[in-house]
Amino acid sequence: MKNKQLIYLKKPDNTFPDSAENIFKVSESQITLKSLKQGDFVVQVHYVSVDPVMRVWLSGAETYYPKLKQGDVMHCFGVGIVIYSNNSQMNVGSQVFGNLGIQQYSLVDKSRRKMVFPLPQQQDFPSIKLIDYLNLVNNGMAAYMGCIEVCQPKPGQTILVSTAAGATGLLVCQLAKQKGCKVIGITGSNRKCDFLKGVIQIDEAINYKTQNLSEVLKNYKIDMYFDNVGEETLDLAIRQINQKGRIALCGAMGNYNDYNNRKGIKNYLMIVLKRIFMKGITFTEVGEKMPEVLEYYSNSIKEGQIKTYIEEFESIEKLPEALKFCFNGDNIGKVVVKIQDISFEEACKEVFKQNSLSSL
Amino acid sequence: MKNKQLIYLKKPDNTFPDSAENIFKVSESQITLKSLKQGDFVVQVHYVSVDPVMRVWLSGAETYYPKLKQGDVMHCFGVGIVIYSNNSQMNVGSQVFGNLGIQQYSLVDKSRRKMVFPLPQQQDFPSIKLIDYLNLVNNGMAAYMGCIEVCQPKPGQTILVSTAAGATGLLVCQLAKQKGCKVIGITGSNRKCDFLKGVIQIDEAINYKTQNLSEVLKNYKIDMYFDNVGEETLDLAIRQINQKGRIALCGAMGNYNDYNNRKGIKNYLMIVLKRIFMKGITFTEVGEKMPEVLEYYSNSIKEGQIKTYIEEFESIEKLPEALKFCFNGDNIGKVVVKIQDISFEEACKEVFKQNSLSSL
Repeated sequence: MKNKQLIYLKKPDNTFPDSAENIFKVSESQITLKSLKQGDFVVQVHYVSVDPVMRVWLSGAETYYPKLKQGDVMHCFGVGIVIYSNNSQMNVGSQVFGNLGIQQYSLVDKSRRKMVFPLPQQQDFPSIKLIDYLNLVNNGMAAYMGCIEVCQPKPGQTILVSTAAGATGLLVCQLAKQKGCKVIGITGSNRKCDFLKGVIQIDEAINYKTQNLSEVLKNYKIDMYFDNVGEETLDLAIRQINQKGRIALCGAMGNYNDYNNRKGIKNYLMIVLKRIFMKGITFTEVGEKMPEVLEYYSNSIKEGQIKTYIEEFESIEKLPEALKFCFNGDNIGKVVVKIQDISFEEACKEVFKQNSLSSL
Repeated sequence: MKNKQLIYLKKPDNTFPDSAENIFKVSESQITLKSLKQGDFVVQVHYVSVDPVMRVWLSGAETYYPKLKQGDVMHCFGVGIVIYSNNSQMNVGSQVFGNLGIQQYSLVDKSRRKMVFPLPQQQDFPSIKLIDYLNLVNNGMAAYMGCIEVCQPKPGQTILVSTAAGATGLLVCQLAKQKGCKVIGITGSNRKCDFLKGVIQIDEAINYKTQNLSEVLKNYKIDMYFDNVGEETLDLAIRQINQKGRIALCGAMGNYNDYNNRKGIKNYLMIVLKRIFMKGITFTEVGEKMPEVLEYYSNSIKEGQIKTYIEEFESIEKLPEALKFCFNGDNIGKVVVKIQDISFEEACKEVFKQNSLSSL
């Protein structure tokens, strides 16, 4: 069975994301189903997600995934369907999420088992398409934990959201609107401001590249802040937040580019005097909460209160282009690369066909 | 009725605390009980507390108390007994706490009413002496909220405590020991280290002035941090803390001296990735919880599990000396200045005597 893969060649240099083309090659390998050991299974990869954390993986840093070595298949968060299984826990036809590698077919053997987990099945949450899970699992969990559990929004309260038009931010804005809050979003272009005010219908959108954030924010008293950037923006939020304010710390876009030259959070004394509650959030935290959170999103999507926004690139070859798009902040919502575009029903037929053969 | 008072003369200069003598004068005024309006009452002041926040008041900063002007009686947290009352809510003989002013008798009129509140009566918590409330109300509330409610200590877990031999720190250390935790204290002298290990029996005491805090802390993984200093110490705690660590932010000794040259909290990304929970605490927060917390302390003191540690200076004239002692970090526990040293019973007799006269 032929398997097209995106292979990691080398660390990005300072010209990243411009140099994104030079750090990968597209290659083809072969999967032999006969080689599957007890517990192994094969996933047909449908979509992979393009995320800021990819830059960390590309740098060869220690993370929750194995360090990338030259010649490895590039890490990703991906979704797909099990098409062949030698694992009693993982049925053929199951929807899965995880580090499937950027490739057409992912052989999930012992080395990869802990990085892949089952999703609800299509019939359980019909309002959620397979591609949506790329937005709802990691971004959606962080948005829910940060916005609902840390910020505890109440009707009429005001929330400030940074990177408001991003994959996580758009969900936070919608969750907060759903809870009856006033939402102020910070983003990096007039196009995104227009989208936030026109489509998502948040109350105020600030373009931090053309407006003086410090001055503009003086017009608002906020109850909650969902932070994706850290640094000065976080300090400004601490300055503007009310007594007993809640802050979800969810990302550090302001830290990624210049980690050794961090300015730090200076308004420490205000955190004390205002009795602010701050909590760091990562999507890995939510483990056992996932069914509950996905059910929340499923219902909200069905009722039209929340929508996923996805910008789709077609084919493995477009991955470098998608990375540039994401790192230049051109995206509204989630950036996704399509690996293969077949419906759930087609995938099932494919599964049936594949299983009628003893080897491919 | 003669009333000796400590009068504020001018802002401290850079030589503070050495210059503490020059910023006050001791003076005498007169209280005429006939001038008491409906709602007014008079408190015989027994003890006043010497606190880091006094420096903020002395600078004429905006706080929860009126800005000090030349000629005003110096602000304080004080305890005393009501000896004359034209207020139906405030009985003669009641124990009170609040900004009584550093003086022998405090006429609590409309301007001062919101700054003074009743304490439990002596018979309610016989294990707590009047002087103890100076340690248990503000420090005790912050220690309880920070250590018990924010840090949520569990047996066998490790807590790091900064300014561990201070008025708040000593209570935190004892609360955490009571909960079965391993306690690591940071303090500024070998004398205080000896006290912490020998008397309070915490597990490790670090002298940050003679030891390399960054290196020493590498030996410990901590679950909780009670912070009184901010800045680099907080960053080191964030570096050492485990996943899902809890941090109570309670003071900013590291910020007071050089507010305009703050280094900031640099380890922002670790707060996110470790999913750390941080919360600012001030004693003003606990309002309705006070009875519950004081009962907790009362029981713990009765059972010998917690003890207040108080360094006492005698007489109003010693206030500048006590301030120097406190700001040079020479104190173990709470620094208190005695205004008048009479027992509760004697105070009651005094009350009786005073009340038998129509005016004094």
